[in-house]
Amino acid sequence: MVSFGDVKAAHDRIRKAIIETPVMTSLTANQLANCSIFFKCENFQRIGAFKFRGAFNALSQLSTEEKARGVITHSSGNHGQAVALAAKMLGIKATVVMPKNSSQAKIAATKGYGATVVFCEPTVLVREETTQELIESHKYILVHPYDDPKIIAGAGTAAFELINEVGTLDVVLAPVGGGGLISGTAITTKGLCPSAKVFAVEPEQANDAYRSFKSGKLYPSINPNTIADGLRTSLSELTFSIIQQHVDDIITVSEDEILEAMRFLWERMKLVVEPSGAVPLAGLLKIKRQVSNQRVGIILSGGNVDISRIFDHWHKEITK
Amino acid sequence: MVSFGDVKAAHDRIRKAIIETPVMTSLTANQLANCSIFFKCENFQRIGAFKFRGAFNALSQLSTEEKARGVITHSSGNHGQAVALAAKMLGIKATVVMPKNSSQAKIAATKGYGATVVFCEPTVLVREETTQELIESHKYILVHPYDDPKIIAGAGTAAFELINEVGTLDVVLAPVGGGGLISGTAITTKGLCPSAKVFAVEPEQANDAYRSFKSGKLYPSINPNTIADGLRTSLSELTFSIIQQHVDDIITVSEDEILEAMRFLWERMKLVVEPSGAVPLAGLLKIKRQVSNQRVGIILSGGNVDISRIFDHWHKEITK
Repeated sequence: MVSFGDVKAAHDRIRKAIIETPVMTSLTANQLANCSIFFKCENFQRIGAFKFRGAFNALSQLSTEEKARGVITHSSGNHGQAVALAAKMLGIKATVVMPKNSSQAKIAATKGYGATVVFCEPTVLVREETTQELIESHKYILVHPYDDPKIIAGAGTAAFELINEVGTLDVVLAPVGGGGLISGTAITTKGLCPSAKVFAVEPEQANDAYRSFKSGKLYPSINPNTIADGLRTSLSELTFSIIQQHVDDIITVSEDEILEAMRFLWERMKLVVEPSGAVPLAGLLKIKRQVSNQRVGIILSGGNVDISRIFDHWHKEITK
Repeated sequence: MVSFGDVKAAHDRIRKAIIETPVMTSLTANQLANCSIFFKCENFQRIGAFKFRGAFNALSQLSTEEKARGVITHSSGNHGQAVALAAKMLGIKATVVMPKNSSQAKIAATKGYGATVVFCEPTVLVREETTQELIESHKYILVHPYDDPKIIAGAGTAAFELINEVGTLDVVLAPVGGGGLISGTAITTKGLCPSAKVFAVEPEQANDAYRSFKSGKLYPSINPNTIADGLRTSLSELTFSIIQQHVDDIITVSEDEILEAMRFLWERMKLVVEPSGAVPLAGLLKIKRQVSNQRVGIILSGGNVDISRIFDHWHKEITK
């Protein structure tokens, strides 16, 4: 498993490599939810998401021999960029397997951090097979996006900084996809504020964690259809067991609720946050009667979202 | 005129009402411009722009008799909201004259801060006449958006906080429209770092300040056609004379350059910044050879921009 001590050790290990992201507050948000909210802004983290914390924590603990072999991961999103950048900073060769229909921006960013990108057909099965073949032929070290105690401990350092900065909290919310962030967040929160409640928030359209939590049996995510692209993955045995032990409840939110929370963050708080990052605020607004006048921490997990459409529109405006 | 002492006094006066906005840095931005940039994020200021500083500074100095009469301004943008909120916080009745084609979001925000909105035909002449009539019939106090030493001193408090936080700077850049922000910024910068250079940055499509500065003769802005809607106004005699005395040069930037800088701020730095707020970064990128390895301050003036289009698109995506 993963302990609170692992999170503290991870923070000591990665603190010089990460950005200690700001905590933001908003009177308007506090009025809306009738509580005091502290937003930990991981959209300002390196590569634009909390994922860098876990990737750097895992890669920096590889042995010299493992570092020489190089690392591999499969990801269409933030984890691939996080592994690419952490590897670059540590002088390790990285390979990222990406679905061939990934956006040009994501491919460019991953390559920009110096990783070798290998394209495959856009199915989970092919992605895993391609990765496995490369591991067998090149002896690469696999860096899993969440099913790894070092990744989970790294993810927990965001809540660690948040609570160290603002003091005791009554409630902490984080999104749940594969479960790495919520696991690290829950372990850290219970370590620093034992009486605080920890809520995971999940899209209704990808509610495998909710169903697993309520039934006590691990369900996979089947054809999740949510705008929160970072939360389409399934829990692992490891993250499920941590969630069962440390998370108080799982709240599900609709696509409309996600978009409404995201719009609030952009329009009122001036924060570019990706849909997955807006999910915990959507969850908080749903349970606001339960948390009135409490001190609430929210992990804004990332800000990587395609803004081409609005800039293409503005570009047309200035050239017409 | 306005002195550095006026800015310090303004900061003492308004410090409990304003947000001391964060200063952000970005390794990617530093690499791009080959210098160390400190962004003063006034998009996180109350009402989403630096304008609140001047409005609160001016309104808080009204006499009891003036406060009882109430204040008025004409504005289609940030200044109207700033006056409305400052008036609400100080218990003063505020009237804002707005063009009847103002966006619903701006009208709602201004009313939301408790101001009475009076609509008029969308021309500068009618706006001024309508305001004048209301002043004559109601004895309201006019709060000009920039042609006022108290507004200028308040605007200067952003640079005051920036330099106090990060230390001596070699260069400071701010956008120029009516000239209130650049005037306050220049007075403050020369007061705290006498050897620093201050550059005003202006859209080519609204280059009245540039032409005035270069010719020594005050030109008005005629039919400015720029996406940077906060910078379409003309200098006043007061702001022009401060600029002539304290600003080292004026840089003009194209519409493409503004949009490119704005996209960088959104995509890489995760900051929702309005076009006017991106103008100084566009200017810096234009003169980067001149500032290599220097310490550069940038005032990101605001973040109020209509994001309906991209959210309407996402809303269609989730409902299809």
